[in-house]
Amino acid sequence: MIAGLPPQIGLYSSIFPGIVYSLFGSCKDITLGPTAILSALVAKYVAYSDDFAYLASFLSGCIVLLFGILQLGFILDFISKPVIAGFTTAAALQIGASQLRSLFGVSGSSGNTFVKAIINFFRNITTIQLNDSLLGVVTIISLMLLKHATIPVGPDSSSCRVRFAKLWVYVLRARNALVVFVGSILAYILYVQGWTPFALTGKINGGLPHFGPPPFSTVVGNRTLNFTDMLAVFGAEGLVMPLVTILESVAIAKAFAGSKPVDGTQEMIALGACNILSCFGQSMPTTGSFTRTAINHACGVTTPAGSLFKACLVLLAVTLLTDAFFFIPKTVLAGIIIVAMTSITEFGLVTKLWRNSKLELAVYSLTVLVGAGVGLEYGILCGAGLDVARTLAHAARPDLHHQLFKVGNQDCIILTLLGTLTYACCEHVPRQLRRRAGEHVHVAVLDARHVQRLDYGVAENLISTILDLEQNHRFLLWNFKESHKQLFEDIHPGFSGRFVNGPSIDQHILGLEPIPMR
Amino acid sequence: MIAGLPPQIGLYSSIFPGIVYSLFGSCKDITLGPTAILSALVAKYVAYSDDFAYLASFLSGCIVLLFGILQLGFILDFISKPVIAGFTTAAALQIGASQLRSLFGVSGSSGNTFVKAIINFFRNITTIQLNDSLLGVVTIISLMLLKHATIPVGPDSSSCRVRFAKLWVYVLRARNALVVFVGSILAYILYVQGWTPFALTGKINGGLPHFGPPPFSTVVGNRTLNFTDMLAVFGAEGLVMPLVTILESVAIAKAFAGSKPVDGTQEMIALGACNILSCFGQSMPTTGSFTRTAINHACGVTTPAGSLFKACLVLLAVTLLTDAFFFIPKTVLAGIIIVAMTSITEFGLVTKLWRNSKLELAVYSLTVLVGAGVGLEYGILCGAGLDVARTLAHAARPDLHHQLFKVGNQDCIILTLLGTLTYACCEHVPRQLRRRAGEHVHVAVLDARHVQRLDYGVAENLISTILDLEQNHRFLLWNFKESHKQLFEDIHPGFSGRFVNGPSIDQHILGLEPIPMR
Repeated sequence: MIAGLPPQIGLYSSIFPGIVYSLFGSCKDITLGPTAILSALVAKYVAYSDDFAYLASFLSGCIVLLFGILQLGFILDFISKPVIAGFTTAAALQIGASQLRSLFGVSGSSGNTFVKAIINFFRNITTIQLNDSLLGVVTIISLMLLKHATIPVGPDSSSCRVRFAKLWVYVLRARNALVVFVGSILAYILYVQGWTPFALTGKINGGLPHFGPPPFSTVVGNRTLNFTDMLAVFGAEGLVMPLVTILESVAIAKAFAGSKPVDGTQEMIALGACNILSCFGQSMPTTGSFTRTAINHACGVTTPAGSLFKACLVLLAVTLLTDAFFFIPKTVLAGIIIVAMTSITEFGLVTKLWRNSKLELAVYSLTVLVGAGVGLEYGILCGAGLDVARTLAHAARPDLHHQLFKVGNQDCIILTLLGTLTYACCEHVPRQLRRRAGEHVHVAVLDARHVQRLDYGVAENLISTILDLEQNHRFLLWNFKESHKQLFEDIHPGFSGRFVNGPSIDQHILGLEPIPMR
Repeated sequence: MIAGLPPQIGLYSSIFPGIVYSLFGSCKDITLGPTAILSALVAKYVAYSDDFAYLASFLSGCIVLLFGILQLGFILDFISKPVIAGFTTAAALQIGASQLRSLFGVSGSSGNTFVKAIINFFRNITTIQLNDSLLGVVTIISLMLLKHATIPVGPDSSSCRVRFAKLWVYVLRARNALVVFVGSILAYILYVQGWTPFALTGKINGGLPHFGPPPFSTVVGNRTLNFTDMLAVFGAEGLVMPLVTILESVAIAKAFAGSKPVDGTQEMIALGACNILSCFGQSMPTTGSFTRTAINHACGVTTPAGSLFKACLVLLAVTLLTDAFFFIPKTVLAGIIIVAMTSITEFGLVTKLWRNSKLELAVYSLTVLVGAGVGLEYGILCGAGLDVARTLAHAARPDLHHQLFKVGNQDCIILTLLGTLTYACCEHVPRQLRRRAGEHVHVAVLDARHVQRLDYGVAENLISTILDLEQNHRFLLWNFKESHKQLFEDIHPGFSGRFVNGPSIDQHILGLEPIPMR
């Protein structure tokens, strides 16, 4: 409905992606379906015609699949643990807050960020419904009790008791389904008696979707748009959809995978296949849904086949069970979602980051604040941006370890260069060299044993600094790679006389011509 | 005129920034003034009222000054040598091509990129003027001859000859002024005889500018806009102007500084002061101008006081010498600019980069291609973007040096971690550890002597990988910093038993419990 499509399209969009994902997906918890962000993105195209939604699914599926085939999964390495944790926290806050409305039967819209959801809730708080609130709170308390209940196996494990304990395990696992069932029965009984105290899910406009290839032409008003016209409507901006598809789904996959690696490339292939194939059955663009994934997780799903199970349930919902689903009280669903959310907020990370890495805590906080205040996707972008800035800052200001020592009566200093010396440190390294070489040092040694890469600009600036300081100092460039020596020689022919190799530097220092007295 | 302002504003905008820059500036060659890019940016505000141009100068000056005061000069470290060289080459190509029109007296506009200038030139080639072409080519040949002329000091250095040689040095240095002078005299003589064979510079609408504070309110149509309204007109997009101001000026400063460092912070302060103070004398936003800086450089300027000299000349041009400047043939100016451009293209870098660093050559090429085809500022952005991508790729895929060795009958491997291990390598490092630890290795040692920083995600993934592999391997974490040990212990209490210190690892390996037989 956010996308401006008939509500059943949202259900159709949960069926086929679920089936396809169970075949290609690699994350057990992920549940694919239409999401608020993607729906909002597709809405402006649907304003022309519904056909755009199905074509968008097909095209963005193709692009995501292409990303997967090109093995671009490595891009996801740039979404760090603090960003994922911040995203999770912000998403849980937002989703939890947006359910307050249904939980208390308050009217009005919920808002698409945590802050807006809270504001809207308190703005409409006078419309609170006692019955819904009561059932909602009872649902939450029941779920909490069932979640923390222990299995009653005493010392006298009689056959009957063991069997009861086994049953109890299943009851605990199925607690989400159980409260839905109990809530629906209650609503049904009261309904039969002529009383509807709760807001119910209501009629699902069902039936099976129409099958067929995605529309490559459409009619808008009295004008027929061919495929090229439709592409022009999407424009370059249309590329945002596949990017959001990947970003949302993989952020969720990483969030629920914990410290286990997520195969980004495989996820891209799965997501692409889901979007391409599902649009043959009237599906809009789909991606990982945080709420549904969290509920899946809370229900204890253990393999991607859970997606298939979910798809079957939705299929039942739109065909045979429309009447049964009618009676599910909205407040019960809200209660389930809120309980699922409480278990996934990652506040524990905050204290660990506080003790060990304040900068990463800043990344986490920025992601949470922007995510909860402006929007989840902006939260991820800001967090990832700060991470990139952090990486660039490290590249620009590498720590140069230095050590003073004496050989004979010469004061020497050794500066250790490490790893990759990129263009960004091409002012910093020569500046450090100039500072450390100071007045009292006769010989400065640059130790490049651990240098892997060295940019042109760094070499150029090092050369000009060394040539400049050589009136009062001697320089030795120790254990440079052959390729780096060549670079120095190429920039300044004759420079390579300063390069020395070998395990000990002392002999080379002793062999130096002394600096003429001033 | 690009900005939609009266032409004399362009001249006024060259006077005061020149004076102020001579006081605050740190780069000898830089010439400040209105540029094509800034003019195009300011044009849409001038469409409301000229007052916006002066206020834009004031406000963007304030922002640039603030950048300087906040010591944000380090941002400019992220514009690498290949980007600067690529920008220089693209700028020289574009400016040279845009002068072809004046050189050959061809009509039509010149276009704001190299590609467009060339296309426009050939589109209007039929309107070529013989006289202009002739004078232009003669100008270029004269300048080339003067530039490469040697000073005729023979073995018989008589006093007269020495004096002549000294004069000759000044003639060679003043060659640009000389050809302008000769060209103007020629045009004047022909003009007096009633013949105007060349396109001339023409009348400069002069007089002194009006002095006064920048306008904090203005009238558009019959509506008075106060300061807040004017700010609203600029909007967030107005922030592009100070950024372009900094980017253009510092790119030029770096290009002409060679391998000497450029003090970005001081340049920001100078640029800010120039824009703030000049707007009191009817000046639009100004920044470093590539063409004029290159001519300054070609004229052999040696201190920032050259700016003052230039400001005085422009002041003379708009007051006393309007008649003299009338006769300068445009083709002579075009010839001077083209010769100045030939001396600053940096094609020599290409071969050096080809031999030593193909990736940096890609950065250079991208900057040139985008700069010449789309626009100079886009060239810088694309080049800088590719540089950032390069840095991130290095951060994500650090080389891990490994070495196999034997202690007793145990096969061991040592993996050396280097520098900064950021979030981006948090999948890569554990993957490498898993691969290297392979089947035949009993003990894997992680050497962290040279690790400076280590992100949370890397530690977390290392721990889960080690715990996973520990059934078949023993792990030793060697020479980790105390802070890193604490991080590991914080994530997984009890993990710190694997940390060892000291110069030799062999004793620690011998002290390990053997792995139980399977």
